[in-house]
Amino acid sequence: MTAALWVALILGLSSVHHGAFAYEFQTKTIDVPIDHFTFTNEGTFKLRYLINDTYAKSNDPSSPIFFYAGNEGDIELFAQNTGLMWELAPKFQATLLFAEHRFYGHSLPFGNASYDSPKNLGYLTSEQALADFALLLRTLNPVNGTTKSRPVVAFGGSYGGMLAAWFRIKYPHLVVGAIAASAPIRQFQGVTPCGIFNQILSSVFNLAYKPECVANIRRSWVTLQNYSTTADGLRMLNEKFKFCTNVTKASDVTETFFEYLTDVYGNLAMINYPYESNFLAPVPAYPVREFCGRLDQNYTGTELLDRLHSALSIYYNYDGKATCLNINSSYDGSGIGDRGWDFQACTEMVMPMCADGVSDMFPPQPWNMEEYSEKCFKKYGVHPRPQNALLHYGGEFLDRSITNIVFSNGLLDPWSGGGVLRSNNDNIKIVLIPEGAHHIDLRASNPQDPASVKRARAEHATNIRKWLDGYRMLKKAY
Amino acid sequence: MTAALWVALILGLSSVHHGAFAYEFQTKTIDVPIDHFTFTNEGTFKLRYLINDTYAKSNDPSSPIFFYAGNEGDIELFAQNTGLMWELAPKFQATLLFAEHRFYGHSLPFGNASYDSPKNLGYLTSEQALADFALLLRTLNPVNGTTKSRPVVAFGGSYGGMLAAWFRIKYPHLVVGAIAASAPIRQFQGVTPCGIFNQILSSVFNLAYKPECVANIRRSWVTLQNYSTTADGLRMLNEKFKFCTNVTKASDVTETFFEYLTDVYGNLAMINYPYESNFLAPVPAYPVREFCGRLDQNYTGTELLDRLHSALSIYYNYDGKATCLNINSSYDGSGIGDRGWDFQACTEMVMPMCADGVSDMFPPQPWNMEEYSEKCFKKYGVHPRPQNALLHYGGEFLDRSITNIVFSNGLLDPWSGGGVLRSNNDNIKIVLIPEGAHHIDLRASNPQDPASVKRARAEHATNIRKWLDGYRMLKKAY
Repeated sequence: MTAALWVALILGLSSVHHGAFAYEFQTKTIDVPIDHFTFTNEGTFKLRYLINDTYAKSNDPSSPIFFYAGNEGDIELFAQNTGLMWELAPKFQATLLFAEHRFYGHSLPFGNASYDSPKNLGYLTSEQALADFALLLRTLNPVNGTTKSRPVVAFGGSYGGMLAAWFRIKYPHLVVGAIAASAPIRQFQGVTPCGIFNQILSSVFNLAYKPECVANIRRSWVTLQNYSTTADGLRMLNEKFKFCTNVTKASDVTETFFEYLTDVYGNLAMINYPYESNFLAPVPAYPVREFCGRLDQNYTGTELLDRLHSALSIYYNYDGKATCLNINSSYDGSGIGDRGWDFQACTEMVMPMCADGVSDMFPPQPWNMEEYSEKCFKKYGVHPRPQNALLHYGGEFLDRSITNIVFSNGLLDPWSGGGVLRSNNDNIKIVLIPEGAHHIDLRASNPQDPASVKRARAEHATNIRKWLDGYRMLKKAY
Repeated sequence: MTAALWVALILGLSSVHHGAFAYEFQTKTIDVPIDHFTFTNEGTFKLRYLINDTYAKSNDPSSPIFFYAGNEGDIELFAQNTGLMWELAPKFQATLLFAEHRFYGHSLPFGNASYDSPKNLGYLTSEQALADFALLLRTLNPVNGTTKSRPVVAFGGSYGGMLAAWFRIKYPHLVVGAIAASAPIRQFQGVTPCGIFNQILSSVFNLAYKPECVANIRRSWVTLQNYSTTADGLRMLNEKFKFCTNVTKASDVTETFFEYLTDVYGNLAMINYPYESNFLAPVPAYPVREFCGRLDQNYTGTELLDRLHSALSIYYNYDGKATCLNINSSYDGSGIGDRGWDFQACTEMVMPMCADGVSDMFPPQPWNMEEYSEKCFKKYGVHPRPQNALLHYGGEFLDRSITNIVFSNGLLDPWSGGGVLRSNNDNIKIVLIPEGAHHIDLRASNPQDPASVKRARAEHATNIRKWLDGYRMLKKAY
């Protein structure tokens, strides 16, 4: 490690810490029903939300509320990584409101027993979460649900972007419009081909530095598998990768480690921002380039292992704090609730993924719904309803009655494949960010932002202004 | 009873029978989840639906589906009383589809135990019913939820009209538009004053024949109460009204009988059609006029009781089959599921009602939410969520993104007070039928129809044509 890198790291850490505590808010809770849609359970729980009223004109009924539709993690993580809302708030004299998604962060309906499945965990669904949000807004926003209320603009990124869009679709009386950033509302069976995600992902790695990067990754699957078949090989892998828990059998490598690697590659592409950041993990600017920089020649055997481990440290140990590599989760300490998401992926959010090893850099892996379903039943005692999201929210077809939603997508984001990239409905706005990773447009401005990101943020502001003006005119008409 | 009336009755019965068996369909079922919105219960049940394909061009993807959103009763009742759909079907080459509402008719999720409350009955909610409908359509309509599917137009009257409108609001990807007839989507707390229903109702009775009718009704409450306070009085009442179960205490009169009378007056106004009909009960043409015709002078004492009983027979015994007056239900044998509706009224469909005895003909009765809530808890072990419908569906404010809904209301229908009678959203169509009772426009054409009903039906056809044309253009654009 060079001195320059040390300096960069130290500066980086400081800016990362600064980033993590940049924004201040009050933390509150509201009692919401555990079940909004039946009367079989009258229980309630405390849903957490964050609020900042600094910029709102007090008691001005035209001051908007900027509402973040919390996704699969601690709501503070999203509040701290959605700088756009904080930058727009003073311009619009907006109240900032971030609602936590049930079963994540501190919003656990059954406390420590929340993940006892499926009796308790079964209440973790997107429809229930949207109803929580609706109740929160109806409670906080006086003269509820009418033109006399303050206008609400929804924001969200990724699954939060899906929720923001769906919130506008399902509760148009509560929200005037939605900025849905990197929201893959079409990443469902029968709508988006299962291979798209991995194809975009592979292309990002291919273009990041040198083609050797992808060649090494392709080679690594076979190499790792070969080492996994003997006791000596496993010993070598433990030595090279410094796993927190030693791998002791082939499947620890070909299942657990492969899955970890696949997740890390996806995450690196998602957070491939042009500046140092700390969203899913602390990483340097353009982390995919950094990663590929360590796989810049054709390597084989133990050298490939060394190089791959070094490259992985960009993701799992950029802050130098990790003493070992935990392959059980690629979200360690990030605030992302991957356990909850895994359940959602096994119930409603079934997003088919596959690889063919030709148009992507992964071991061939067809999508097998039956196998997936069985696995889910084994884990959680529930069967997926893979058509649920399309059934309840549509998405493949955006009826013209669906209005005031911006779907923004970075084209370097593997999730863009399941996003809304075009629409014949001109009440829906499409914003493409050619140089953008996962919902970069929701992040705070940065000098390194490409022009397309700056343009996207300006478009967001223009659209929000238009929605608020429309609302004001409607108010006068009533 | 005069000979002429006998003849009228005999003819009437025949036409009533003819009406009841006029329309033919296939009866089918589909398995739907008991709970669409959690994964705590993986059970399913058989939802019944009726289908008629006679008029559809087979395999023509532009043939629409006319979908009736079943409400609180046996779906056959609604299929037989929605002649409009049957008359429009050949003109539009439409498939007719009538879906039964869960917990009514034959669609009982837990069979005979369905009304065991609230563990089972708690699944009776409008959101679950709409999700049933969505699943049915997505299953029957090939290439689901896209512009390649056949366009679906929703119809519904009363609560079914609310469901039709809400279906278009919540599932715009599945339904191109909705004819929501007499749908009181604003009959909720804080939106519509609780006295409106009884004021309209009283006005209908006041104008039906002679003002003495309302004067007699007003007087009857005190008279009945007076008789209820003594054993002799109760005996007299039993003799005069021929109750199926004798009244034995004051509350049998001032609670049970008063409630029955209030329901009957409401029902008479609802079905005050200009021709003989059999919807909630077999009744003659203009049944309110017939009723009031028997209260045409100022009566008191036992004469008032005799006259009131005679007037009531218009409703409970027009077909001459009743041997006694059952005051426990005003829906006996009608196919309406009043038990289920009573539960819905105690949970989500809380429609505040009150009377002041001055602007209406009822004993003064303020609306008391707390008392109502306690009563519901006693009956069903659940507390009402009176804001639920407004929370989930809006209604007091129809955002401009809500399109392609016709709200039609007969102004002689007491439910019109909670209907949508005006809107600044010109994507919503308002149809007023000055001479109309409860969703008369959904009924089959009749020579006695007033001009305003004929105009309303023509407007429905025009709007449906427009929606279907819009959908066809969208299809081309995709």
